[in-house]
Amino acid sequence: MLLVNGEAKDYIPVTDRGLQYGDGLFETIEVRGGKPVFLKQHLARLQQGCLRLHIPVPSAQHIGCEIVALLEHSDHVTWQSSDCVLKIIVTRGSGGRGYRPPDSVEPTRIISLHPSPDYPSSYQLHGINARFCQTRLGLNPLLAGIKHLNRLEQVIARAEWSTLDIQEGIMLDINNHIIEGTMSNIFFSKDGILHTPVLSHSGISGIVRNLVFTLAYRHHITICEHFFDKEMLLSADEIFVTNSIIGIWPIKQLETTVFRIGSLTQQLQVWLDQLKKE
Amino acid sequence: MLLVNGEAKDYIPVTDRGLQYGDGLFETIEVRGGKPVFLKQHLARLQQGCLRLHIPVPSAQHIGCEIVALLEHSDHVTWQSSDCVLKIIVTRGSGGRGYRPPDSVEPTRIISLHPSPDYPSSYQLHGINARFCQTRLGLNPLLAGIKHLNRLEQVIARAEWSTLDIQEGIMLDINNHIIEGTMSNIFFSKDGILHTPVLSHSGISGIVRNLVFTLAYRHHITICEHFFDKEMLLSADEIFVTNSIIGIWPIKQLETTVFRIGSLTQQLQVWLDQLKKE
Repeated sequence: MLLVNGEAKDYIPVTDRGLQYGDGLFETIEVRGGKPVFLKQHLARLQQGCLRLHIPVPSAQHIGCEIVALLEHSDHVTWQSSDCVLKIIVTRGSGGRGYRPPDSVEPTRIISLHPSPDYPSSYQLHGINARFCQTRLGLNPLLAGIKHLNRLEQVIARAEWSTLDIQEGIMLDINNHIIEGTMSNIFFSKDGILHTPVLSHSGISGIVRNLVFTLAYRHHITICEHFFDKEMLLSADEIFVTNSIIGIWPIKQLETTVFRIGSLTQQLQVWLDQLKKE
Repeated sequence: MLLVNGEAKDYIPVTDRGLQYGDGLFETIEVRGGKPVFLKQHLARLQQGCLRLHIPVPSAQHIGCEIVALLEHSDHVTWQSSDCVLKIIVTRGSGGRGYRPPDSVEPTRIISLHPSPDYPSSYQLHGINARFCQTRLGLNPLLAGIKHLNRLEQVIARAEWSTLDIQEGIMLDINNHIIEGTMSNIFFSKDGILHTPVLSHSGISGIVRNLVFTLAYRHHITICEHFFDKEMLLSADEIFVTNSIIGIWPIKQLETTVFRIGSLTQQLQVWLDQLKKE
């Protein structure tokens, strides 16, 4: 289930700068009941990323029509396409000499549907097990926050473990600050205050992460964005990770430290579900 | 002129991890008189990169045969294929769930020939003009030195200028240390001693950079690898940049500071040409 620049095909030219240099961006979006969840926010982030990388912003209307076309013609797939994962990749397209982008660019849009990962509901209800990754994130203010295609750090970190009893790896930067999970953002609460890492030098600014900020402001929960280390994280009352597909997963165990699934995490899960329906 | 896993085609599946995550490596090799120059060194670096990224090392024999096949069947191209550029890309291939690499990987090999860039010989003989880039390189010991496909920093830096009178941009890291050019490594000489940046936290460890070390040792020239800033670079006697396609280009002007094309740079150019023939 793939559209490349609106055409049904599953390949791109080798010359595409997405392959040559990771010169592009992506979004991973939950589809529930046949509708992309938080699509407006995903398209806004995609637009922001394009502006930061100076890639011409693809028309949201184009992308919207292509998503509808994909979802409408997905009857023949064997998996349940009304609840699935939608991925959008935008690259700078082909051309240019070496690193230098061509003067006139025609970006590539790749829109695809994928079966939902088969995460048990217990992850959401009773929490997950997590570990600390050995792989350290680099520091790069230029690219921090952007969901771009240069993702070797995450690939290497995620390859650190293959046991099924660990669901996420928590990544530190080279200064030993906690930054994020390999595929998620991280929050913890302590004495009723929410904490999450600053993403000024590393990390991806997640859609659900931003929504947790929105919910915290709306419900008068203090939220504090700062640099913190392993020890501070391990002294938390509650920890949870977020992304667009998992929503909010509490961490019940991080390395050898056990955490309770607290009321703040559960409340945020309820509020996030309500936001999805708004 | 392209071979993908030995087959003549010019596209790859969208699922390739080279596109999805920049999960791969590349080499850019000079072809002179129908022969790839320093091929052994390029294949060794490719192998080192694969080992560092845990990508199965493609057989050098396979790649060698494919290069020969490409060069032998390039008669119909309009450009001069006996003197051209050979590019090798190796990606981790398709598959895996999210960032997690698949348990069993079949890497993708992409081998292609390109016309040589039309650099005037004056660049080599009389030097080039260079500027300092605004774009700062991040710090990432995990990936430093590797010629991987995560190259957004270089793309953004190279997009800073389009005037034809500037041939290279010199990049600093976020600590304001000089690291490299957008497409080259950098050296300077001061009082007969060669200096070049440490690449422990950023930068690509170039083949010609390594050969300059070899030549310096062979000819008893002191070479010093360390962190230095703009001011130190601008106080140099001679500056030059290196890569596999350009060889050694002296810098005759960096921003407003003018440099002479000194005897050390010229001597290294001669020795490098001799190495090519060995």
